[in-house]
Amino acid sequence: MNKDMLMIDGLQYVNWNRGLFEQAQRAGLHAIHVTIAYWENSRETLENIGHWNRHFLDHGDLIMPVHQAADILEAKRLGKVGIIFGFQNCSPMEDDVKMVQILHQLGVRIMQLSYNNQSLLATGCYEEQDGGITRFGRQVISEMNRVGMIIDMSHSAEKSTLEAIEISERPIAITHANPTFFHAALRNKSDKVLRAIGESEGMLGFSMYPFHLKNGSDCTLPEFCQMIMQTAEMIGIDRLGIGSDLCENWDYSVLEWMRSGRWTMGIDHGEGTAASPSWPRQPTWFAGSKDMHTVAQGLEDVGFSETDVAKIMGQNWQSFFEKSFFGKART
Amino acid sequence: MNKDMLMIDGLQYVNWNRGLFEQAQRAGLHAIHVTIAYWENSRETLENIGHWNRHFLDHGDLIMPVHQAADILEAKRLGKVGIIFGFQNCSPMEDDVKMVQILHQLGVRIMQLSYNNQSLLATGCYEEQDGGITRFGRQVISEMNRVGMIIDMSHSAEKSTLEAIEISERPIAITHANPTFFHAALRNKSDKVLRAIGESEGMLGFSMYPFHLKNGSDCTLPEFCQMIMQTAEMIGIDRLGIGSDLCENWDYSVLEWMRSGRWTMGIDHGEGTAASPSWPRQPTWFAGSKDMHTVAQGLEDVGFSETDVAKIMGQNWQSFFEKSFFGKART
Repeated sequence: MNKDMLMIDGLQYVNWNRGLFEQAQRAGLHAIHVTIAYWENSRETLENIGHWNRHFLDHGDLIMPVHQAADILEAKRLGKVGIIFGFQNCSPMEDDVKMVQILHQLGVRIMQLSYNNQSLLATGCYEEQDGGITRFGRQVISEMNRVGMIIDMSHSAEKSTLEAIEISERPIAITHANPTFFHAALRNKSDKVLRAIGESEGMLGFSMYPFHLKNGSDCTLPEFCQMIMQTAEMIGIDRLGIGSDLCENWDYSVLEWMRSGRWTMGIDHGEGTAASPSWPRQPTWFAGSKDMHTVAQGLEDVGFSETDVAKIMGQNWQSFFEKSFFGKART
Repeated sequence: MNKDMLMIDGLQYVNWNRGLFEQAQRAGLHAIHVTIAYWENSRETLENIGHWNRHFLDHGDLIMPVHQAADILEAKRLGKVGIIFGFQNCSPMEDDVKMVQILHQLGVRIMQLSYNNQSLLATGCYEEQDGGITRFGRQVISEMNRVGMIIDMSHSAEKSTLEAIEISERPIAITHANPTFFHAALRNKSDKVLRAIGESEGMLGFSMYPFHLKNGSDCTLPEFCQMIMQTAEMIGIDRLGIGSDLCENWDYSVLEWMRSGRWTMGIDHGEGTAASPSWPRQPTWFAGSKDMHTVAQGLEDVGFSETDVAKIMGQNWQSFFEKSFFGKART
């Protein structure tokens, strides 16, 4: 294994503090796509971005913002962790297409078009019916294409995802999900979606979140790595990365927020159940960022070459970000 | 014609001032469902409600708020115009189901689940695809049923409308639209929707907005009244009212707001066209509230009995509001 390879995690949701930044840095992560919002509206999102601005002030020796792909290489050179802002929902832009540019100006580089439920732009994966990309959604996709913000369909429904791939002039990402051929969860992606990602030169980040894994928390590392091998055979090695969906240091109330937002009078258990509502146990081989190398070793063990392991662990995300983070003139 | 009949307009959108309140009062209108919001968010809606609170202070000799159906009878007794607050969209509640009760507490009695576009609750009539009522939409319908707020699907798409009728435990309204058998506009309603409204004991308010009329601004009064006759034969006289969709005293910029909100970088011409983007000319026989009696006479002229004319001009809305404006215990 190339110990100097670029390492990028395509999604983490962590209640960050100095200790956790240190852990990520020691793990050798050069960039992490962090979640700034699930259901937050514009004002609440500004507050969350404000918190990150303070993190950069207080922990500038450990982390730095990523506004363009080259910043990740700079972070690697400096031994820091590059931070890529992303939203798991479009709630931060509320009803205003002009917010896309404003959020990009504030550093946001990735946005999901919907989170589990129907949004103003697209349908979420937990809805019974999927009306596809909306009129407003088309406007927003065009604007995201223009300014250079990645469309992420991790929590979106199938038809909406296929339409986003079709409508977008740039490749899109599924930052954190697994194939349904591995585990048939609503959050995972069908062969059809995977092939569309492959053909459009998009990206899929493999998730270690137990609800996305075969046998949940008991999924083994070889099983996980074989799933990646099978996906590589299906859509090509260059389309694959890691999006661990690592959730750290949150109490149950945050999981309730992620699942229920403000949209239900009851409690929605999402991927959990009423009997087992809480955070799932991580697989033993991925307890946190420190185990990125464990995963890289696992990939080598199932037969990936050193070059391919490096692609999956970071180089593919880097190449994708190089094409994605710059704006282009409106066509 | 019974000159003392109750007269209710199921929808107007007017830039109100004292002169226009006087006109409505002189016209003999006892209640008007007024539009408080199209795309406004929570905070903007509070401002609009604040403006109305000032109207009630400044013009309390002419208008009064309607919080329950009996208030309309009181307005009639006092010679005032009762004002029923309504939204043409669910934007005022943003993403929070708890806002339903709060808005009800502030006097709001009618809310559309979507306005032309996809909302968080339902699909609008200008979308190409209709995913029906969303997960959040089901929660909101349940809450509107509980507190006593009428579900209005005037600008919603067909499947969403049929599902709202099915899901809601109370009858719903289409406050302002016409049958597609009369004029095949996206905003008008199919026989299937009309029959579902009839069978569920809902209400349809007939619109005089030219884009909803056969031959537009040139539609004749007999044609309009024959349409009502045909609808009465289809779904019964008790389900019918007037929802004139009268728009008065607004300049073009407001029409742009209604059509384009904040969701498009371009201009959406809605029912208009780029060649003729502005407000349409009213039909000669309905220049404003003063012509409510002209319409009543037209109904008599095509053969409606005095009793039936009184039902259409106000009594049916009154009966519907009596069943609709009170809260009930959550089932």
